[in-house]
Amino acid sequence: MSVHQHPAGHRLVPSIASDPPRPLRIAVIGYGYWGPNLVRNVIERPELELAALCERDEARAAAFTQRVPGVPVFADVDEVLDDPQIDAVLVATPPRTHHPLAQAALRAGKHVLVEKPLAKTAAEASDLIALADSRGLVLMPGHTFLYSPPVNKVRDLIRQGSLGDIYFVTSSRMNLGKYQSDGVICDLAPHDLSILLYLLEQPVAQVSASARSVFQEHIPEVAFLTLTFADGVTACIQISWLAPRKVREMVIVGSQRMVQYDDTASDESVRVFDRGMEFKEPANFGEHQLSYRSGDIVIPRVDAAEPLALELQDFAHAINTGATPRSHAQLGYEVVDVIEAAEESLRRHGQPVMLAGAPARVAA
Amino acid sequence: MSVHQHPAGHRLVPSIASDPPRPLRIAVIGYGYWGPNLVRNVIERPELELAALCERDEARAAAFTQRVPGVPVFADVDEVLDDPQIDAVLVATPPRTHHPLAQAALRAGKHVLVEKPLAKTAAEASDLIALADSRGLVLMPGHTFLYSPPVNKVRDLIRQGSLGDIYFVTSSRMNLGKYQSDGVICDLAPHDLSILLYLLEQPVAQVSASARSVFQEHIPEVAFLTLTFADGVTACIQISWLAPRKVREMVIVGSQRMVQYDDTASDESVRVFDRGMEFKEPANFGEHQLSYRSGDIVIPRVDAAEPLALELQDFAHAINTGATPRSHAQLGYEVVDVIEAAEESLRRHGQPVMLAGAPARVAA
Amino acid sequence: MSVHQHPAGHRLVPSIASDPPRPLRIAVIGYGYWGPNLVRNVIERPELELAALCERDEARAAAFTQRVPGVPVFADVDEVLDDPQIDAVLVATPPRTHHPLAQAALRAGKHVLVEKPLAKTAAEASDLIALADSRGLVLMPGHTFLYSPPVNKVRDLIRQGSLGDIYFVTSSRMNLGKYQSDGVICDLAPHDLSILLYLLEQPVAQVSASARSVFQEHIPEVAFLTLTFADGVTACIQISWLAPRKVREMVIVGSQRMVQYDDTASDESVRVFDRGMEFKEPANFGEHQLSYRSGDIVIPRVDAAEPLALELQDFAHAINTGATPRSHAQLGYEVVDVIEAAEESLRRHGQPVMLAGAPARVAA
Amino acid sequence: MSVHQHPAGHRLVPSIASDPPRPLRIAVIGYGYWGPNLVRNVIERPELELAALCERDEARAAAFTQRVPGVPVFADVDEVLDDPQIDAVLVATPPRTHHPLAQAALRAGKHVLVEKPLAKTAAEASDLIALADSRGLVLMPGHTFLYSPPVNKVRDLIRQGSLGDIYFVTSSRMNLGKYQSDGVICDLAPHDLSILLYLLEQPVAQVSASARSVFQEHIPEVAFLTLTFADGVTACIQISWLAPRKVREMVIVGSQRMVQYDDTASDESVRVFDRGMEFKEPANFGEHQLSYRSGDIVIPRVDAAEPLALELQDFAHAINTGATPRSHAQLGYEVVDVIEAAEESLRRHGQPVMLAGAPARVAA
Repeated sequence: MSVHQHPAGHRLVPSIASDPPRPLRIAVIGYGYWGPNLVRNVIERPELELAALCERDEARAAAFTQRVPGVPVFADVDEVLDDPQIDAVLVATPPRTHHPLAQAALRAGKHVLVEKPLAKTAAEASDLIALADSRGLVLMPGHTFLYSPPVNKVRDLIRQGSLGDIYFVTSSRMNLGKYQSDGVICDLAPHDLSILLYLLEQPVAQVSASARSVFQEHIPEVAFLTLTFADGVTACIQISWLAPRKVREMVIVGSQRMVQYDDTASDESVRVFDRGMEFKEPANFGEHQLSYRSGDIVIPRVDAAEPLALELQDFAHAINTGATPRSHAQLGYEVVDVIEAAEESLRRHGQPVMLAGAPARVAA
Repeated sequence: MSVHQHPAGHRLVPSIASDPPRPLRIAVIGYGYWGPNLVRNVIERPELELAALCERDEARAAAFTQRVPGVPVFADVDEVLDDPQIDAVLVATPPRTHHPLAQAALRAGKHVLVEKPLAKTAAEASDLIALADSRGLVLMPGHTFLYSPPVNKVRDLIRQGSLGDIYFVTSSRMNLGKYQSDGVICDLAPHDLSILLYLLEQPVAQVSASARSVFQEHIPEVAFLTLTFADGVTACIQISWLAPRKVREMVIVGSQRMVQYDDTASDESVRVFDRGMEFKEPANFGEHQLSYRSGDIVIPRVDAAEPLALELQDFAHAINTGATPRSHAQLGYEVVDVIEAAEESLRRHGQPVMLAGAPARVAA
Repeated sequence: MSVHQHPAGHRLVPSIASDPPRPLRIAVIGYGYWGPNLVRNVIERPELELAALCERDEARAAAFTQRVPGVPVFADVDEVLDDPQIDAVLVATPPRTHHPLAQAALRAGKHVLVEKPLAKTAAEASDLIALADSRGLVLMPGHTFLYSPPVNKVRDLIRQGSLGDIYFVTSSRMNLGKYQSDGVICDLAPHDLSILLYLLEQPVAQVSASARSVFQEHIPEVAFLTLTFADGVTACIQISWLAPRKVREMVIVGSQRMVQYDDTASDESVRVFDRGMEFKEPANFGEHQLSYRSGDIVIPRVDAAEPLALELQDFAHAINTGATPRSHAQLGYEVVDVIEAAEESLRRHGQPVMLAGAPARVAA
Repeated sequence: MSVHQHPAGHRLVPSIASDPPRPLRIAVIGYGYWGPNLVRNVIERPELELAALCERDEARAAAFTQRVPGVPVFADVDEVLDDPQIDAVLVATPPRTHHPLAQAALRAGKHVLVEKPLAKTAAEASDLIALADSRGLVLMPGHTFLYSPPVNKVRDLIRQGSLGDIYFVTSSRMNLGKYQSDGVICDLAPHDLSILLYLLEQPVAQVSASARSVFQEHIPEVAFLTLTFADGVTACIQISWLAPRKVREMVIVGSQRMVQYDDTASDESVRVFDRGMEFKEPANFGEHQLSYRSGDIVIPRVDAAEPLALELQDFAHAINTGATPRSHAQLGYEVVDVIEAAEESLRRHGQPVMLAGAPARVAA
């Protein structure tokens, strides 16, 4: 299966008929911003069992213990990795630690789910993929939005051909966000990029980046990325930590329809505009003719489901069956590759950077 | 007065105390998409008198005559320019004709209002400015949005310091639009650029462009521009003719507040978010501290007024008093300069293009 | 044809194939708030010709003459009614003058379109209907909303059975409105009532009213009406001149779907919620079971058309062909009858008032 | 303190300086729809300790035990009431059981918080109040909305005089709701009524009700109430279980401003319209003059806080200090009184029913 042909057939559903006899024993590494969500979902999923937490910060460790009294907490990750009872680890630590922690876990024979981004560089990501492949272990980046019901509704529409040919995409992700020393591109762009790669099913060919660092040099809080995909789709991504209004909106314009996906509009997150423009070749030497088609707007019903629950279910399914998870490592690699290229464009003052294409670079 | 210090003092109001004894005699050139709006407003303004229309297309000329029976229509522009009774012309023809028509009109001693963009190239725009200056005539580009009440409400907020330091701007202008052979950048970007130059009062230092031409090569229907202004503000402009939903939204994020200007939200076009993020230098070797401030959202009352009526009033005022109109020729020059640079960036596959700065280029 | 079986077959379209050889000669009576709209539309419709205006107020008469120079203005209505060249009159004067003016016009052999409400009392309305019938003249109340595209979209949905059984309706019509000595019920409720009678196609059986008069006794500025229709549908109408936000919203809840019609939401005026509740009889001695069905929201495309233009076209069509106009006199009678009953309820401090049913009262 | 002078001085804040040495020991009675929310909040509040659950349904009891392993569950309420360690009970059972359970608990010397409505009849409510008074126990109805931050924002605006004189109120509360044999008035109207009594601080003088029972006779699923308050404010309440779109909106129109409170609009729940209408007495024999004032719309920041947490804090505060809780028993009585009157109006086919006024009826 090629990188860009995602498995469409298997549907994730909250419970699976023939569960494995024993739940997978899971250790969560990191109990900061995202860790508590992982912990809650591991506890609630029948195919998983929370076996340990690894957290060096004492206050966080105490908060965990108060909440989940029976589960041991370790300050040293090696204690967890050395435990043969642990089947898999979930890594929810800062991006710069993803590669060393995932590497150590894979070497210790554990399956690994790493929070996005998979690593800080494409080389690191490639190294992890090779390692997981050689050991026959699951390595999965935590691109949670791939499990979001509205994202999958949009994907269904695209796959069914409802949109026609995709012309362009805009994506805005803004809020008053947590400041992180990795910068806003590394923090927020993985969401937009993973969704776009998942929806468009083609690699990014070129990226340019423009950004502004208000508070500290080289740590941008706002960035604009423009991307060209392999088949010509052009996209513009706007991300920022400085915007007083929360925005999470993606617009995908095709020849037949346009879809607007607003992640903040709880009950009406997806809107399909059944309108378009048709271009007719001139009959003879005349002017080109454009005609407009106008139609209904449909707000399809989207199931309510917690994406993280489905992500963990998919992780367990991949471990138990050997299936490729929806949020697979190649996609995680490509996200990192584009981010690395965007940061290179930024260093070159907005110069566009070509991407060699994920498979080629991996091969190299 | 420098280019970027716009006259703030004089306020445009629908009627002026001491009107000149005789209305200015106006000829409208072109009765296509925009011409009928000019005609209606010239008729309604007391300081103007519609003296002639120039239109070669017979069907359009007939439509005009049916609507305004008493006013003569000429197919040849020279007949209008040779008429010593005509004080000024309003040019509402395709962009490539702006330079020759405005040039001829200025040489014939007429004041000129040209629809946006002022010309196709900065050199042409510069030529018109020099010509108007040497003859002591008013040359005014029709940047109608500078007379829009919500735009001026936003400008007032910025000038009063309500937003604090401006960090970044996003602007989206999309619809299912009329296809024009000049491409979407030349068609739509003058609106965003004129508004940004008017609001930010600083020149553009760098621009990159990315676009897609779906129907015909080299005629883009969607484009993304990223701009850096002289004082560091970064901006992203998204324009398209292919979007089934009409969008006209600008977001301006400052250190103190954020403003959202949605030109399609009739009664609630301006929203001010009184929220922000404060960055505190670490006391000693510690981490940087960010604090968040949250407050009200205010939707200020914005007067209802037709921008084109105010624009024509300003044109008459400039002719009668010698005052610089709000939509002045230097601003029109800068808009053309940025568009030319954006098109150059497009030819170079997104390479950023530096701008020399309007005054320098004019001086050269 | 019964009162509540409106002609569904004939569709109003902007132009009709076989127009009559001569346009109908129309006199407009009253050039206040609504008259100018009538004048503009009469001028623009090919099947009508504006022959005269009747207006006593000199300033209004002068404003008309400036706008439409060639058409005579009369202060005395008899001069218009005595003119045998006049085919029909459009009455746009205050409600209390509707009966005497329409009566005089019918007696003079003119077809009559009267602005809503048809008259101040059911007896007056009944008198006008009898008079028009006896003379073979068209008498039509100006219930413009019956020609509104979104209202007809809702009607189509109901007629197609999309909503299932109608359970209840709410309608709110509020703004900062023009104060009128007839009170808010007489001013605004005809809109809601005409729409409801048109949509539900059944008479009102009972009405209660509650209101408040803030500025002057017995002239309410806010009122709440609760209605029970003949087949059990219950409705609540909220009307006010005192609300700072303009509201024009109707919600119609049926067993299969709900429709929300918001007249202020230009492009999205109709929303269909494909959700419902199903009630299942208990199998045996058990509890009743309710199940919920959730589905899409659809915002159907609604044509843009000016309702008043279609209303005047329908008036001409009724005169020329003898067809019953969509806004027919019986419906106008029923509106007046409900308003009279609501005002009676108000005098009785909210006591519900039964309606005998339109046909019976007409017969009496 | 009169019934309608609520204590404005004391502010509820999440933590109180001098907490009592021992948490109050609480038993929750009923673990159906609302019980789990009570349980979660009791566990989280430091001034409360969850001592027991009373629940006859085995499945529910088991669900509780799985969630809160250490706390005993009793099927028989007497076991709880006989336990001298229990300080207070929270009653979350169907409305018809409120009186007997609260009565038994008060007789057993327990403080009581009863879910809304306080009882099924005013007589029952009055009986409970007398009993609590005679024993010196706290009896508090669970009108949770009185602790909702947006409701209190609206109340602050009214108390500060921002709205001027209140003219009228509309309230809509609709959804696809749980069917209950007590009918929609008993189920939903306590929310609207408690909020209105809290905001307007005056008793209801008259109520009429109109309703429809679609599925079962005498169990309405939709109802419209019109109320007149003692000082003339008129209100219209629309409630339904049959509406496919969730609506929770209240509009309060005053002489100076209008407030719209939309409980479903998370970040923008309160909107203040600074617009109004002024009525000027005619100078001499002339017509009345109305002038309109238009201004900004403000969406004030509203704190995020869980109303139920604040309600339980207030309950504990009342027990510990003897202070009257914000959701006090007299207000609960009035709510029941209005509901009883509305149901009487319904039986009389919409006849308005006068209310004697809470204090008088209590005295009787």
